[in-house]
Amino acid sequence: MPHEPQPTEPADFSLDPSDWEGFRSQAMRAMETALDHMQAPRERPVWQPLGAASQEHLAGPLPEQGAPLERVLDEVESHILPFPYGNSHPRFWGWVNGSALPVGVLGDLLASAMNPNVGAFHHSGTFVEEQVLRWMASMLDFPMGDGLLTSGGSMANLLGMGAAVVARAGFDLRRDGLRSGPQLVVYQSTQTHNSIQKAVELLGIGSANLRQIAVDDHYQLNLSALRQQIQLDRASGLQPVAVVANAGSVGTGSLDPIDALADLCDEEQLWLHVDGAFGALAWLVPECRPALQGMARADSLAFDLHKWLYLSSDVGCLLVRDPESLRAAFAADASYLASLCGGPAAEMHGAFKDRGIELTRRFRALKVWMALKHHGRAGFEAMIRENIAQAAYLTKLIEGEARLELLAPTALNVVCFRHLGAPREQLNAHNEALLVELQESGIAMPSHTLVDGKFALRVAITNHRSRREDFEILVQACLRIGQDPGARRR
Amino acid sequence: MPHEPQPTEPADFSLDPSDWEGFRSQAMRAMETALDHMQAPRERPVWQPLGAASQEHLAGPLPEQGAPLERVLDEVESHILPFPYGNSHPRFWGWVNGSALPVGVLGDLLASAMNPNVGAFHHSGTFVEEQVLRWMASMLDFPMGDGLLTSGGSMANLLGMGAAVVARAGFDLRRDGLRSGPQLVVYQSTQTHNSIQKAVELLGIGSANLRQIAVDDHYQLNLSALRQQIQLDRASGLQPVAVVANAGSVGTGSLDPIDALADLCDEEQLWLHVDGAFGALAWLVPECRPALQGMARADSLAFDLHKWLYLSSDVGCLLVRDPESLRAAFAADASYLASLCGGPAAEMHGAFKDRGIELTRRFRALKVWMALKHHGRAGFEAMIRENIAQAAYLTKLIEGEARLELLAPTALNVVCFRHLGAPREQLNAHNEALLVELQESGIAMPSHTLVDGKFALRVAITNHRSRREDFEILVQACLRIGQDPGARRR
Repeated sequence: MPHEPQPTEPADFSLDPSDWEGFRSQAMRAMETALDHMQAPRERPVWQPLGAASQEHLAGPLPEQGAPLERVLDEVESHILPFPYGNSHPRFWGWVNGSALPVGVLGDLLASAMNPNVGAFHHSGTFVEEQVLRWMASMLDFPMGDGLLTSGGSMANLLGMGAAVVARAGFDLRRDGLRSGPQLVVYQSTQTHNSIQKAVELLGIGSANLRQIAVDDHYQLNLSALRQQIQLDRASGLQPVAVVANAGSVGTGSLDPIDALADLCDEEQLWLHVDGAFGALAWLVPECRPALQGMARADSLAFDLHKWLYLSSDVGCLLVRDPESLRAAFAADASYLASLCGGPAAEMHGAFKDRGIELTRRFRALKVWMALKHHGRAGFEAMIRENIAQAAYLTKLIEGEARLELLAPTALNVVCFRHLGAPREQLNAHNEALLVELQESGIAMPSHTLVDGKFALRVAITNHRSRREDFEILVQACLRIGQDPGARRR
Repeated sequence: MPHEPQPTEPADFSLDPSDWEGFRSQAMRAMETALDHMQAPRERPVWQPLGAASQEHLAGPLPEQGAPLERVLDEVESHILPFPYGNSHPRFWGWVNGSALPVGVLGDLLASAMNPNVGAFHHSGTFVEEQVLRWMASMLDFPMGDGLLTSGGSMANLLGMGAAVVARAGFDLRRDGLRSGPQLVVYQSTQTHNSIQKAVELLGIGSANLRQIAVDDHYQLNLSALRQQIQLDRASGLQPVAVVANAGSVGTGSLDPIDALADLCDEEQLWLHVDGAFGALAWLVPECRPALQGMARADSLAFDLHKWLYLSSDVGCLLVRDPESLRAAFAADASYLASLCGGPAAEMHGAFKDRGIELTRRFRALKVWMALKHHGRAGFEAMIRENIAQAAYLTKLIEGEARLELLAPTALNVVCFRHLGAPREQLNAHNEALLVELQESGIAMPSHTLVDGKFALRVAITNHRSRREDFEILVQACLRIGQDPGARRR
């Protein structure tokens, strides 16, 4: 260093609290605030826009000097907490987001206080994550060779596809790159989540080489169309490597014929990746297993725990069948990470850092561990069954109303419908207006999608707080708002 | 569904606490536990191996039925909390890990309770992350075009490289893939963190096309060697796309000549990515800025906030100069994510999901926001200055001891040294044994690296709890253990 910093006076400057008792009382207040937020969501609107004062506050410049913790918490309570995304609320069913199980929130607190690096090393964090991964495999009857907790489904999908191409390229992809072999091709149905396309692009394969296979009336991948496309690609000198199957598609919750796809992948020696972001966990409910048959035959299985295990984000999971496949794709040596003859860095082989992209890894496993200890597998089975039954209940309510139309067969926990209160050519605009009014009024939070070009209100239930009455409120609100969606704004 | 699940009785099953008062008292206990863990690290060993009983406990099967929260917390206190990685301790200086700033832990708690998806949408989470990104750019005098909080440096490096190749490939890489253009080449010094190699491999470029450029005596990239290699590659028909510069190399903390590299990248029209995992934040200390000159000229800058902002993992940051470059690389449309005319999904353009891989994104920004509000920029400047001064202090202590040898010039906060108490050919084994004994005795936690083939004890100080006396304890322990590293084990 050309200008060596001199010691600060006093020599032992620290950012730890100088007054721990004062800090403790503010920490208790923060816990009360967190608990209040979780306990009383039903009294709040599902969602409301940030007020002008809060928007202005959150546009302020970098603070030069610090402020007392008490004042910082005041600011959080005034400008941040009142404007949540909404997914703690019993009537939030937008996109697919978990509802923040309270025990998991405590797990996150303790994980942050301990703050281990679960990338490797001998400490409780790595033992807990290994255990949680075994539990995940056990819950899904998946013959796990290896696995990893991830930031979510997108990352699990990326890592699964990364492992697939390394395993099936047939050349040394990591060393020589994609240009040293034939063009690789990946297959998915048109209903697949866009994280697969993002993964295929990031891996350098190109979205032009991701085949979009047609679906049938139930939005399930058409097997013969897939088979034809594979033959066509092979005939053109391309190299098929992987098929992606949906266990709960994002739009309608549909389930691809996984068992048949596994047969086809066996025949064709392709990697089968199952994107089970929310649907995989329906395996917990025995009645759902026929529709998921074959899931345990996948080479890689991606799913989220911040969806249908209701945990706070971020936590997803990737399980793979071949114990070497993740390490083959992601392990990397470095002298600063080598094993030693003892201490925390003994036995680095098989470390989590070698199964994915990240080296420093948060202790995500703790909230999963605590939630499974507290609720048991049986608790999640009951809750997921209840959400599926709620979807069926909502479906019946919709079918009983002449002004409402179901837009796709309800699969698992996803219900797509619309209101028929406008001429056919205006139905998309009418339903968009209805949905926005439903959201802005704070009554409920479905999201939306297009089903065969039709704008759909989409209810995806991964919420441990919803009750039957909440779906009745939704239907009544749709009928009322549907009479004149712009009324309140005028 | 072939077998439609029937409603669970009672109809309104929930995983929320049935007894909120009881849950609250356990939550308060969890907060006390977290605070105790943070307040009293000095009384604990830095690290200790998991006992047999805890290992066995953490090998147990998936719980079928739940247990009371009280018992789950008992288990956490018995089997998990006593065996941390060690980085809450004032004498943890291994690898590069933050020390878990208490205010950040409260931020993580509140983030988990609110649990927004900060992938997009109108809610306080997205406003706070945008503000935090502006603060990051402001702290580093970086002309931010765009940015993203990430899970850490590995992810920030991957996204930076992903943006680089899309921007500089010269063809439609996302659509057509790498095989549709010339071979791309990336350049880095031999001292670069292996996350760059992992990124280059994942992107499909191949590690054979990642050039390892030699360094000088200060472990800084040799500019003329780089220039020669670029010419050679161009002459061979390859396409150079990006140069990676180190702002704080992982082994020795060395700083590449960033300003000169920025000149070269301008001339050669290459993307300059700076890996400033810990070093970038030394910019907060004005005395350090000469060594970091040119950092603000990078096309992309990656750094961690769970290192030198002392926050709990995971949180890193990527800043990019070109406002379009992240979206050009990562934006993806989907009907289920389209903007609406109002509600939370209005104005989806520029959403965080379009700047990286993840769609569901944790509210990482809240702990950063609260920490900067509470300590101010000035607080972090003082703490980082103190850590750098501590590295200089340790260096002087080592230089004053004949039995200790400094193995590289101390740069920023990294000190590499060894003990000379063995014949030259046995020094590596001797120092490994010394380090393991130091770690297993629970006294201190340096990690290790090889410096020109020599086994080095490596002290990387990103710890807000360390005091001068801690480094004196380290040196005395090294001298004592160095006399006979195997003594305690015999």
